[in-house]
Amino acid sequence: MQKTKHLALERRELGETRVLRRIEEIAPRIGIRSSAVRLGIGDDAAVARATPGCDQILTCDWFLEGSHFLRDKHPADAVGWKCLARAVSDVAAMGGVPRCFLLSLALPATHTRVWLDQFLGGLRRAAKRFGCVLAGGDTTRNENILINVTVAGEARTGRAILRSGARPGDTLFVSGRLGEAELGLRLIRNSKHRPSSHNPVLKKHLYPEPRLALGRWLAEKRLPSAMMDLSDGLSTDLPRLCSLSGVGARIEAGKIPMVVMPKSGRSSDNDPLEMGLDGGDDYELLFTVPRRKWKHLPRAFQGLPLTAIGEITEERALLLIPEAGRARPLRNLGWDPFRKLL
Amino acid sequence: MQKTKHLALERRELGETRVLRRIEEIAPRIGIRSSAVRLGIGDDAAVARATPGCDQILTCDWFLEGSHFLRDKHPADAVGWKCLARAVSDVAAMGGVPRCFLLSLALPATHTRVWLDQFLGGLRRAAKRFGCVLAGGDTTRNENILINVTVAGEARTGRAILRSGARPGDTLFVSGRLGEAELGLRLIRNSKHRPSSHNPVLKKHLYPEPRLALGRWLAEKRLPSAMMDLSDGLSTDLPRLCSLSGVGARIEAGKIPMVVMPKSGRSSDNDPLEMGLDGGDDYELLFTVPRRKWKHLPRAFQGLPLTAIGEITEERALLLIPEAGRARPLRNLGWDPFRKLL
Repeated sequence: MQKTKHLALERRELGETRVLRRIEEIAPRIGIRSSAVRLGIGDDAAVARATPGCDQILTCDWFLEGSHFLRDKHPADAVGWKCLARAVSDVAAMGGVPRCFLLSLALPATHTRVWLDQFLGGLRRAAKRFGCVLAGGDTTRNENILINVTVAGEARTGRAILRSGARPGDTLFVSGRLGEAELGLRLIRNSKHRPSSHNPVLKKHLYPEPRLALGRWLAEKRLPSAMMDLSDGLSTDLPRLCSLSGVGARIEAGKIPMVVMPKSGRSSDNDPLEMGLDGGDDYELLFTVPRRKWKHLPRAFQGLPLTAIGEITEERALLLIPEAGRARPLRNLGWDPFRKLL
Repeated sequence: MQKTKHLALERRELGETRVLRRIEEIAPRIGIRSSAVRLGIGDDAAVARATPGCDQILTCDWFLEGSHFLRDKHPADAVGWKCLARAVSDVAAMGGVPRCFLLSLALPATHTRVWLDQFLGGLRRAAKRFGCVLAGGDTTRNENILINVTVAGEARTGRAILRSGARPGDTLFVSGRLGEAELGLRLIRNSKHRPSSHNPVLKKHLYPEPRLALGRWLAEKRLPSAMMDLSDGLSTDLPRLCSLSGVGARIEAGKIPMVVMPKSGRSSDNDPLEMGLDGGDDYELLFTVPRRKWKHLPRAFQGLPLTAIGEITEERALLLIPEAGRARPLRNLGWDPFRKLL
């Protein structure tokens, strides 16, 4: 097999090495020399320092073209922000602090310049905002854009808040408003062109904010008996918390803090209650608080409303109580990637 | 929008929940109740206990259909084994001990039964073999099979062996034989059907063994000045070690421990030297040892040969010295996922 040396070397420079160099160039600005990370990109693995008295928190999340974002509709900058925000939200949901992340990126060769730079721009801003440094990863080529992000964080030993601690009589709370990200997704799906990423209605869908400060504060005060983040929609995520806790729940439709519909979004297809129950990607926190701790919980935390929407029950059923009429079972209709094909 | 409750719930049960249940069923046998992991699958994130006096090691690896394996040629069991072995090898290359892993899996709906079970079978065996427990992950649907594995390991604080410590005069060693995995890959590519996974020539390609015991022993004895694993081929990986160390190297072609060709593999296209230089996936260790420490290094470790193949030089060039004739530049012709398209 004959191989032409110089051509091969030039091609190589255009390939994986160049992609890595692009990522490395941006890494120091993300804060690779953080005290959390002893050694980052370039070696076989990242080496991070563990804080004495802390447990490690580890989580990973897919972010795939076609399933989680659309190449032609979602700005690369927002893809960079959101792939990290999603994984960091899992750390927030345990009351932890994110420390570093690994980026696994597969790109078509056509996307290793402008798209990559914009993607890394959004990722860099998110990393700075969340205090989470890029520590390593893996790159490869693929026809579709594939992203997987691993976040390593910490929580004081034994203090991470689990999904499994909810008890009958506990009150169910959510932060923020539900359905806002779903509204943004619907607007993007229905628009012919790539929308302006400055449109405020799109902000929660494009640039979600993991509730890190709230999660940490709740864990420090030991207020929640159970907590999780809302990524697939309340009607899909609440059953997960109840199942792990061995309980049921009753939620009051009239108490759910719903999206405020802008004029442009009003239509018979956009039902705020349905969007609040079944819409995904809000990354708000869902948590349960024992009655005796109620008094320590403010109505809002740093401007973010905290709303009681229902109660945990011994009976393992999930009921929705409408503003008028009889209670009905809560239907699990949030996001399931396998549902469409089956 | 009208939705049919019972149908939706049944569909849901067939979807992501069922895939997760399949994985969970197998997780306890992998050893989810290990002391390394406080909390595994089911919550927002995994919670692991850090060992005092240790640094954390974090690494992730893509394993994608089409790029890293072929759906119709590679047994699902081998895909399960190898996706973990590859990532664990990065921990071996730093002299660390793997502790737990996260599995990110995207599957077509057609592959959530037989293929998934066989895949999990191989993964379970690998996890047991490497002492690395499944702690969490993420699943989604995709037309192509996509896998990403994150491994978290540990090494005594400050003792992880980096790629950057090689110094002029150090001797370059490799473990095992190079090109064996490449031979297996070529046999599989050229066969019309899915080959028997019991064929010994295919073993290193299908079921590679990360050199965990060797890496750990070398780190304990503090023998190597630099170390890495060979995943993309010597001609691609050696330049990475030299670049990070700010050095060059001369390697002797006659000393490279090459694959022993079986009769069936002999052809003018299968040049053992080329396969040893450019073939990927061997997951052997490449390491440098200062002269004064030579005497502590055995010729073999637990039956695995350790072979001196060259020397680190001050001049930042990579030279290959053939058995006859003049030294020539080592051409970087190992695996680069971006090369084909560019």
